[in-house]
Parts: sequence; C-alpha cells; structure tokens
Amino acid sequence: MAKENVLHMKGGVGETSYATNSSLQRKVIMEVKTILEENIILIVSNKSAKGCWKIADLGCSSGPNTLLSISNILDIIHNINMKLNHGKPVFQVYLNDVFENDFNTIFNLLPHFYQQVKEKNVGECFISATPGSFYGRLFPNNYIDFFHSSYSLHWLSQAPKHLVKNGEPLNKGNIYISKTSPPSVYEAYFKQFERDFQYFLKLRFKELVLDGMMALTFIGRESHDKIIFVQEIVGMVLNEMVLEGLVKKEKLDMFDFPAYHPTEEEVQQVIEAEGSFTLQKVKTFKMAWDANLQEDVSGYVVDSKMRGEFIAKYHRAVFEPILIASFGENIMDELFLKLAKMLEKLIEIETLEFTNIVLFLTKDH
Amino acid sequence: MAKENVLHMKGGVGETSYATNSSLQRKVIMEVKTILEENIILIVSNKSAKGCWKIADLGCSSGPNTLLSISNILDIIHNINMKLNHGKPVFQVYLNDVFENDFNTIFNLLPHFYQQVKEKNVGECFISATPGSFYGRLFPNNYIDFFHSSYSLHWLSQAPKHLVKNGEPLNKGNIYISKTSPPSVYEAYFKQFERDFQYFLKLRFKELVLDGMMALTFIGRESHDKIIFVQEIVGMVLNEMVLEGLVKKEKLDMFDFPAYHPTEEEVQQVIEAEGSFTLQKVKTFKMAWDANLQEDVSGYVVDSKMRGEFIAKYHRAVFEPILIASFGENIMDELFLKLAKMLEKLIEIETLEFTNIVLFLTKDH
Repeated sequence: MAKENVLHMKGGVGETSYATNSSLQRKVIMEVKTILEENIILIVSNKSAKGCWKIADLGCSSGPNTLLSISNILDIIHNINMKLNHGKPVFQVYLNDVFENDFNTIFNLLPHFYQQVKEKNVGECFISATPGSFYGRLFPNNYIDFFHSSYSLHWLSQAPKHLVKNGEPLNKGNIYISKTSPPSVYEAYFKQFERDFQYFLKLRFKELVLDGMMALTFIGRESHDKIIFVQEIVGMVLNEMVLEGLVKKEKLDMFDFPAYHPTEEEVQQVIEAEGSFTLQKVKTFKMAWDANLQEDVSGYVVDSKMRGEFIAKYHRAVFEPILIASFGENIMDELFLKLAKMLEKLIEIETLEFTNIVLFLTKDH
Repeated sequence: MAKENVLHMKGGVGETSYATNSSLQRKVIMEVKTILEENIILIVSNKSAKGCWKIADLGCSSGPNTLLSISNILDIIHNINMKLNHGKPVFQVYLNDVFENDFNTIFNLLPHFYQQVKEKNVGECFISATPGSFYGRLFPNNYIDFFHSSYSLHWLSQAPKHLVKNGEPLNKGNIYISKTSPPSVYEAYFKQFERDFQYFLKLRFKELVLDGMMALTFIGRESHDKIIFVQEIVGMVLNEMVLEGLVKKEKLDMFDFPAYHPTEEEVQQVIEAEGSFTLQKVKTFKMAWDANLQEDVSGYVVDSKMRGEFIAKYHRAVFEPILIASFGENIMDELFLKLAKMLEKLIEIETLEFTNIVLFLTKDH
C-alpha cells in the first residue's frame, strides 16, 4: 500500500524534476485565475476590510508554480481591495505539502518573489511553509482566511484498502480503475475518496475563520467518460514489462495507485453529506494532455512522437517517487520510454484530456 | 565581501554536515534551558492565560538542535501553565533561517517530533518555517509572543565595510580581528555589529506583541579576553597555505569574516541606545571548545590530537559554506586538516573557550 512519504513531486531543478516539468499545471493555474477573480470578489465584497489575510496553499509542490498561484491570489485580493477602497492588505502565506516535498527549491525562489511583490506594491507579504499531510491538522482553530489547492486533492491519503479478496488482488494487471477492473475496485476507490475528502473538509472547517473560503482545483472525470487515465496507460506499460521479465507480476498485481478522479456529482454528494461547507460554485473545464506543448516548443512542427514524449516526461516528474517505491529506480527510464511510445500511438486514435473540477466553498455558520 | 547567501550551516546529514556536527551547540542549548526556565516563569506569571503561543526561533539551522530548542521551550511553557492552572496551550512555532538553509532536513525530522509532542501531551503544536534573514522583516506587526535565538546573532549581515584604505586592505593576513590587526579593524567590526544589532532590535520590536519577550544566546567575549577566536586560527592556517602557494595572498587579504563577538558591555550599550527593549537579565557562561568531546567519545582516552580534530570538524560544518565561496572547495580538506593540527598544539598551551552571552529582553510599552 502506498504511504504518504512517497506522495510528493520529484524534487530539485534537474531535467526530470517537477520544477522543470510542470508547465501543464501552470496552464491550469492560469485558467483558474479568472474563476478565482469572479468568485473571490463576490465573497470579499460582503466582508469588512481585513487587515491581514492568512492564505494557505495546500499541496503547493516545488517549483515556479508554487509561487505563481500565490502571486495570482495576491493580485486578485489587492485589486478587489483597491476597488473597495479597503486599503493595502498584509498577507501571511502558508505553503503546504508533505514533509518530503522539496521546500528548499521553493525557498531559493523567494528573494526574487519578494522583489516582485515589492515592485507590484500589492501589500506586505510574509511567506512560511507548513509541511505535513493535508489529511491531518495543519493550523490552529479559526485561523486561515482562504485555502487554495491546485492539482492535489485527486491524491488520496493512501491506496484503497480491501483491494484483496481471499488473499488474491482484486485489480490484477492494473494499477488503477480500468476497463477490465471489477466494480468492487471502483467502489473501494470511491469509498477511500469519500473518507479522505470528508475528513479533509472537517479539518479545514476547524482551521477556517468564520467567513473563510476555499478554492480547490483537481482532476476529476465526466460521468460519461470512457475513463482513460494516465495511470491506466502506465498499467499497460507495466504489463508489457511483466511479459518481458522486467517487472515481477506480483508487484504489479499488488500495486494500487493512490489517486481518485471524482465526477462533479460525487464531489457534490460528499460535500452535502459532510455538511460543513456551502458549495458556492463548481466549474468544470477540459484540457488536452498536451495542451501546453504548443507554448513549450513554439516554432516547431509538433508530431505525435513529440506529444507522447512530452506527456510522458511531465508525468514522470509527478509519478516517479511513488513508482520507484514499488518497482525500483532502475526500470524508470525504460518505463517512461515505453509510456511515451504508447502515448504516441494512443494520441492518434483517442481524445486524451483531463477533466478539471474547480470548487468554491464557504464555511457555513 | 561576504553575502548572506553563504551564511548558512552545511546542509544534509552527511559526515561533514552541520546536522552531524553540532553537539557543542546542543550542549549550549541544554545549558541555557535552566536560564530560560528561571526567566520565562517570571514573565509568564504576570500574563493572563494565553490561548495560542506564537514562538519564533531565529537562525534555527538544520539538524536535531533545531527541534531540541523548540522542545525545551514547549516543556517550559507547558510546566508553567500547569503550575498556574492556565490550561493546555496551543503552540504555533516558526523556524527561521536564511533562504539557503537546508529546511528539508528539518522537515524530515518533524513526524518523529510531532509524535514526541503528542506523547508528552504538552499541547497542540503547529510548526512552520519562515525563511529569510533576521536582518529583515519576517512577521506582521504585533504577532510573535516569544523570540528565541541560539548561536546566530554573532553572525553579521555582512563583513564590515571600510576595511580598505587607499585601495589597500586594512586587515592584511587576517580574516578577523586578531592581535596584529590595527584598531580601525576592531572599530569597523564594532560599527557593523552596532548597526546590525540595533536594526535587529527595531525589527523585532515591531513584530513582538505588547508583552512579548526575547531570549538570545550568542558567542561574545570578556573585555579582558586575550581574544583567541577560531577565526583567528583559521587565518593563521590560511597564511600558511599562502606560503605554500595553495591560497592566493590577495584572496586572504580581501576576505573578512562576517561575525562579531561583543562584550556584555557593548551589548548593553547598543540595547540602551536603541531604546525599545528592557534587558531583564544578562548571563555569561564559558564553555571549552571541546566541552562536549567527553560525551561524544566516552570510554576513550582523549588526547590533544583528538581534541584538535574534533574542534576542527564541527567548525567545518559551520564555516565551510562561507570559506568555499572565497577560497574554493578544493582546499577545504587540507585547510581543516591543518586547522586540526594547529589546534592540537594550541590546546596544550592556551585555554580555548567560548564566552556565551544570554540575554533576556522584554518589549517596553
């Protein structure tokens, strides 16, 4: 079973690091900026002027995106404050990710970030990091004004339990819900998501101030989706490697990927059942797996081979720590080479895109 | 001139890291614990029960000592609260050091630390890191209840300016104040300390709550000291290496170590002149450079060679980043080998000890 200590992005700033391979997540953050603008203003307008804004970014990861999210939020709140003549706010920002996240890399970017904040004159800003799982308490009661999270909440606290029946793995030959998985696999995954997300809401309810709010973006799915997830394709690659004798069959059978991609309806159902929050807004948008490739290689003709390699590379930065823990480091190059080739073929016959869900929640009094 | 970005302890947990070579600093922290106990109680007794204690450790470095300081403070405040029937406090702890400090290593120790806090049942505790120089703002106004700092404030924000006259370095052949330095060198160092420490006090005054307090421990000197500092001996080694052609003379002449070790009188003078704080208590205690060696190698007969090697090794963990920046990495092994040998001889003829100064300050209303 996957443990929290491998659920982190690949650290450092090297060729295969998350910091170097996170332009898709950047694109998502920029798409969500407009949604944040529209919704933060609705809520802030009803509030009296606030001296100090306490903002926490949950699952901040490690790289330039970490500070991009924060920069956007600071800009938005500053602009609203200007419109409402509320004066210059002070920001206390808390960056959160698991204990194993590479915070050093973020901290090295801070001097430049503080310089930018000063030049933009959006208000004083004090940045701290608060490491730990967001499936646990992070802050005192009634403390945070605004929780933000981008591309983190599809990670579960652990892979679902009960994926074994009579000693046999239920999801043989797969690492995630796939077309050949029995319904009990989907059920176990949904149950784990339900438990984790409900607990997440309970914890954040305690930590939020009375008029606090949350904006959460994560990868979900549409109910009629033909469910193709990258995890499913990684599973296909691992099957191939079992046949070639590079991976032990038992290891593949026992490994379950600790993520879940809920539908909008499932999310609403969990929020309602938990009862602490009002869902002010839910927005869904799709994004091709190679959506940001054009930007990254502008000037080149982009073919399927490049698309495949590109998608494999940025997923490597996200998946590698967890795959290494189960399958060892020495098969990683081969695994992601094969993944790129498989993606190259698939991208010509399938629509490969993420369904992103953005939630805007306020604390019920 | 030394810049802030090299003023950090050697990261990681390896053989030459600060985390592995900081048992002397640990001994200091344990000595100071009693002084903290005696003084925190005097101040806390006058305060009403506090729901949440906001504590910042300035210059926390990277290793087990970081959390030892915090653990001591939590114990002390918990015990006082028990005596006063104030109920269980909540602690928000902010660990501070420069942006380049190895925070990742501290964060990896946190799960174990949280487990200990839980077992000791001292109250809820939430730990964050706030990177940045303490010669700059770190927190909002009126925010922190208790500033703590151990073995950090003898570091200056930079080496003194004006150590050059008519294009010639004033402190030729030395890297710090030494017997052969002209008086202008001492004056330049004191001026830099005065400016830095006054600025430090001004900043912390803004960040402290009204009844806030500070406990600061650092290496000073006694006025009648025959001033032998490790930096002086490192300077002697570098001179030797110049003669051997291993170090360029110009590099040695231009390098000035960015630290200062004030006397108790100098410290009092700066605090009074700045005027924001009341010095409730000042305590001085001495500690041999090899004070903790007996503990570290219990069972062995400790000779001068071992003493020399031991002192050189833990200073390497502290001095290496700053020396590498000026003299390059490839002379470090040789430099610290020579330092060990020089210390081996010196320790037989000189009393080699630190004069530690502990200050207990409260914010004047």
